[in-house]
Amino acid sequence: VTKLPIFEGIEDYLKEDNAPFSMPGHKSGRGFMSTEQGKKLYKSLINGDITEVEGLDNLHKPEGIIKNALQLLSKAYGSYKSYFLVNGSTSGNLAMIFSAFNEGDKVIVERNCHRSIFNGIIMRKLAPIYIKNKISRRFNAPLSIDMEHFLQLIHNNLDAKGIIITYPNYYGVCVNIREIIKIAKEKNMFILVDSAHGAHFGFNDNLPESAIRLGADMVVMSAHKTLPSLTQTAYLHVSNNVNINRVDFYVSSFSTTSPSYMLLASMDYARYYMESKGAEDFQYCIEMGRKYIEKINLLEGFRVLSKKDLLDENPEDIYDFDESRYIINMKDGYSGHKLIAYLRKNGVQAELSDESNVVLILSPFNNETDFIKLYNALRDCPMMELISKSIPIKINKFPYVSLMPYEVADKVSVKVKLNESIGKICAVNIVPYPPGIPILISGEVIDKEAIAMIQYYLYNDVTVLGIENDSLLIVQEGILK
Amino acid sequence: VTKLPIFEGIEDYLKEDNAPFSMPGHKSGRGFMSTEQGKKLYKSLINGDITEVEGLDNLHKPEGIIKNALQLLSKAYGSYKSYFLVNGSTSGNLAMIFSAFNEGDKVIVERNCHRSIFNGIIMRKLAPIYIKNKISRRFNAPLSIDMEHFLQLIHNNLDAKGIIITYPNYYGVCVNIREIIKIAKEKNMFILVDSAHGAHFGFNDNLPESAIRLGADMVVMSAHKTLPSLTQTAYLHVSNNVNINRVDFYVSSFSTTSPSYMLLASMDYARYYMESKGAEDFQYCIEMGRKYIEKINLLEGFRVLSKKDLLDENPEDIYDFDESRYIINMKDGYSGHKLIAYLRKNGVQAELSDESNVVLILSPFNNETDFIKLYNALRDCPMMELISKSIPIKINKFPYVSLMPYEVADKVSVKVKLNESIGKICAVNIVPYPPGIPILISGEVIDKEAIAMIQYYLYNDVTVLGIENDSLLIVQEGILK
Repeated sequence: VTKLPIFEGIEDYLKEDNAPFSMPGHKSGRGFMSTEQGKKLYKSLINGDITEVEGLDNLHKPEGIIKNALQLLSKAYGSYKSYFLVNGSTSGNLAMIFSAFNEGDKVIVERNCHRSIFNGIIMRKLAPIYIKNKISRRFNAPLSIDMEHFLQLIHNNLDAKGIIITYPNYYGVCVNIREIIKIAKEKNMFILVDSAHGAHFGFNDNLPESAIRLGADMVVMSAHKTLPSLTQTAYLHVSNNVNINRVDFYVSSFSTTSPSYMLLASMDYARYYMESKGAEDFQYCIEMGRKYIEKINLLEGFRVLSKKDLLDENPEDIYDFDESRYIINMKDGYSGHKLIAYLRKNGVQAELSDESNVVLILSPFNNETDFIKLYNALRDCPMMELISKSIPIKINKFPYVSLMPYEVADKVSVKVKLNESIGKICAVNIVPYPPGIPILISGEVIDKEAIAMIQYYLYNDVTVLGIENDSLLIVQEGILK
Repeated sequence: VTKLPIFEGIEDYLKEDNAPFSMPGHKSGRGFMSTEQGKKLYKSLINGDITEVEGLDNLHKPEGIIKNALQLLSKAYGSYKSYFLVNGSTSGNLAMIFSAFNEGDKVIVERNCHRSIFNGIIMRKLAPIYIKNKISRRFNAPLSIDMEHFLQLIHNNLDAKGIIITYPNYYGVCVNIREIIKIAKEKNMFILVDSAHGAHFGFNDNLPESAIRLGADMVVMSAHKTLPSLTQTAYLHVSNNVNINRVDFYVSSFSTTSPSYMLLASMDYARYYMESKGAEDFQYCIEMGRKYIEKINLLEGFRVLSKKDLLDENPEDIYDFDESRYIINMKDGYSGHKLIAYLRKNGVQAELSDESNVVLILSPFNNETDFIKLYNALRDCPMMELISKSIPIKINKFPYVSLMPYEVADKVSVKVKLNESIGKICAVNIVPYPPGIPILISGEVIDKEAIAMIQYYLYNDVTVLGIENDSLLIVQEGILK
C-alpha cells in the first residue's frame, strides 16, 4: 500500500525521463542550470523556503528586496506597475476582474475563456457577452475568435464596461491585439488580457508583441508556462489607466499572506534570465523549431503548422503566431489523442491534444536531443496505431440567456435526463473537451440544437463536462414559459 | 547593482545560519531530512515541479494520486472531506466564508481576525459583529478573547448565520473550542475555525485537541506553519454539515489551476510524517521545551510562560495552550522588539515580538543545539540593551458602525488630518501593531476615544497601520448628522 501517493506518482513519472515539451518552462530544472546564478538558486531553493523575517520584506507591503524586484519586473515589461502572483494566473484574472468591474457590469469575453475568468465573472456578478470562436475546418481546431462577430458585438454593446481577451491562446495563435486595444480605447472600455501563455512575448523580434507594451490596461502572464520559473507563478502588469489602490487590494486578497520565497525567487530569476538572455536564447529556440518543422514535414502523416500555414488559413482572425509552439496536425482519420499517448510511450511529453492535433511547448531549454527524440518517435510511428474515426468539431449557436451565471449560483438545482431537459435552464456549464467551447453556460435555456450537439459529442466518445450518465443539472424553478 | 534582489536577500539571510524558531515548520529542510522518504522527496522536489500530465491527476478534479492522498489526509484528521490548498490558509478562509455564507449574512468574528477573513467578509458582503479581545495586564499582550462578551453577543444576535473563530491564536493560546462548538450547534450557526497555527493539534496527548475532531463545520490549517511542508501550503477540513458542491467550487475558484506539485507533495509528506512520527516527535519537542523553560526561567529578566502560567492568568478565557510555542515574557521596562532583534543578531530567529513578549515556534526539528543557542543568547544578554519605556496595551470601545466594510469599498475616500476627523466615517482599518487589534474598522464613526487611542500609540512610536503623516482616509460623503 502506498504511503505517499503524490511523491510516488512524481517519482514514477520522472523515471520515464521524457523530452519535456510541456510546462513548466524551466523543463525539469534545466532553465535554472543555464546560468551561474540559476545554479546557485537551484541549490538553495528549499533551504531558502523561509518566511517574511526582518530584512526579507513583505509581498503585501513591499519596501525592500521584493519592491526592488518588482521595479525591475515592471521595467523589463514596460508596465506602469507589476505584481508577483504566487497563486498563478488564476489569481491575476480574479484580481483584474474585481478591480476593473463592479457588480452588474457588462463585459465582452470569449465563450471559451479560462475557467478562472468565468469564476471571476460569477463572483463579481457580471453580465457576460460572448465572442464566437472560429473553427478551422482544415486543421479541425478552434484556432481563433470570430473577429467579425467581435466587431459586431462591440457595436451592439456600447454600454459594456470592458473586454477580456486571451492572447495568445493555448495553440499559440494571436488575435489582432493592436486593433482590439484601439477599439477598446475608442469606446472607453477597459481592455484586460489573459496572456498566460505569452510571458516571453516581446523579448525577441520573431515572437509576437507584448500586450502591455501595446497599451492594454491589465495583462496577466504565467511565468511558469514559458519562462524558467516554478509552477503556479505569474505576473500581473497594469497601465496607469487603472485604480492602483483597487488592484493592490484585490491582488493581495487573492494571494496567500504566507507567500513562498521559492516561488518569488524563481519569478525574479525568470525576469533576470529573459532580460539577460531571452532575446538570444529564444532566437535559438525558434531556429531549432523551424529546422525541425522542415524535417518533420517531410514525414508522411504529420504536419507541424508554420506561421504561414496559420496566417494563410484565416487572415482576418489570425494576426500572429508564437513560433515557440508546435501544432502537429494529423490527417483526417488519425487521432491527436492517440498521437500524444504514443509520444509519451516513446519518451516525449507533449502539452495538449485535440481530435486532430498535438501541441508542444518549445523552450530554449529544449536541446537538439529532445528534437531528435521527437523526430525519431514520429518517424518510427506505426500510423495504423493512430487511426481513428475523425470527429469534426462543431459549435452551436449561443442559446437564449435566461439567468446570469451568478444568479444560478444561488439557486437550487436538480438532475434531469438530457432528453427531458429541453426548455429548462441549465445550472452548469456543458463543455466538450476538446474543443473546450461551452455548448451551454449556466443560466442558458437548453434548446434542441444544444441537445443535438451534446449527443453528437457523447456519441463520438468525447468527454463532455457537466454531463454524467446522460444527465445534467437544471435550475429547479427554471421552466421557461 | 543587484540583479536578483530576492535570491540575493535569501542568500544573505541563509549566511546568518540562525537557529530556526520561526516558520516554516520544516526548519530549512530539516523536516524532510528526518525520514528516508523525506530525503528522497527533498532531492527530487525541483525536478518534480511538473504539470498535470497523464497519470499525475488533477487537483481540481482528483481521480488518481491526488484523490488517494486526500483520502489519507481526511482519514488522518478525521474529517468528512479534506482539501489541499496551494494558496495557503488565506484561500481556505475565503473558501469557508464564501461557501458557508450569502450576501448580507451576519457573522460573529473576532475583532482581530486574520486579514484574509476580513477580506472575505468584504468580498462576500457580510455584516460582521465583533468579539472583544481580552488584554492580559500581567503579560501585556492580547492573549485571548473575552468569553463573557462572546456569550452575550450570541444571546443578542441569534439571527447570526455563523461564528468564525481563531484556534489557537498566534501565541498558541486556545479558546474553549468545545464550548463554542456546542453553542454554535445549539443556535444553529455555522462554526468555522481558522486553525492556521493548529495543524499539529491532536497528534499528541500533550497538544490541544483538533477542532475538526470536536465537530467544527470547517477548519483551515496551515501545513507550513508547524508541519514539515513548504511555505504557503494548507489544509481545509469540512464536516458533513456543509454543502460540498459549494466548497468544491470556492476552493477551486481561489486556487490556481496550475498547482505546484512541489507544494502538493510536501503537504502529502507532512500528513505522512505526522501519522507515522508525529506523536513521538512532538513528545520529544514538548519535553525539550519544558526542560529549557526551567533553565531559562532561572535567568534574570526572562520568563517563558508555562501552560500553568497562562491558565492561571485567565481561567475563564484561556482553555488550553500549545506547548510547542514559547512566549518569552519581559519584565516591565524591557522591550520584546529589542529582544527579537538581539536574538537575531545572536543567531536565533524568533517568530514574533510585541511590546513585552517574543514568540518562538518550536518543532521536532529543533535539536538541542538550537535550544542551547537560545539559552546562551538569553544568558549572555546585556539587559540594558533591552531597556525601553513600557507601553501598556490599551483597547477602545467599539465605535458606532455607520456602514458595512463592503459598503465603504465602493465609496470615494478622502484624506483628512486625524484631529479633524471626529464624527467622520473611517474608510480604512486603523490597526496598531502590536497588539494588532483594530481601533477603527472601515465604516465605523471616528469618535473621541478612538482618536485618543491612535494618539496614544503614535506618541509611543507604535506603528499604526492606516495612519500616514497624522492623516487617515474617510468616506467622502460621510459626515454623520
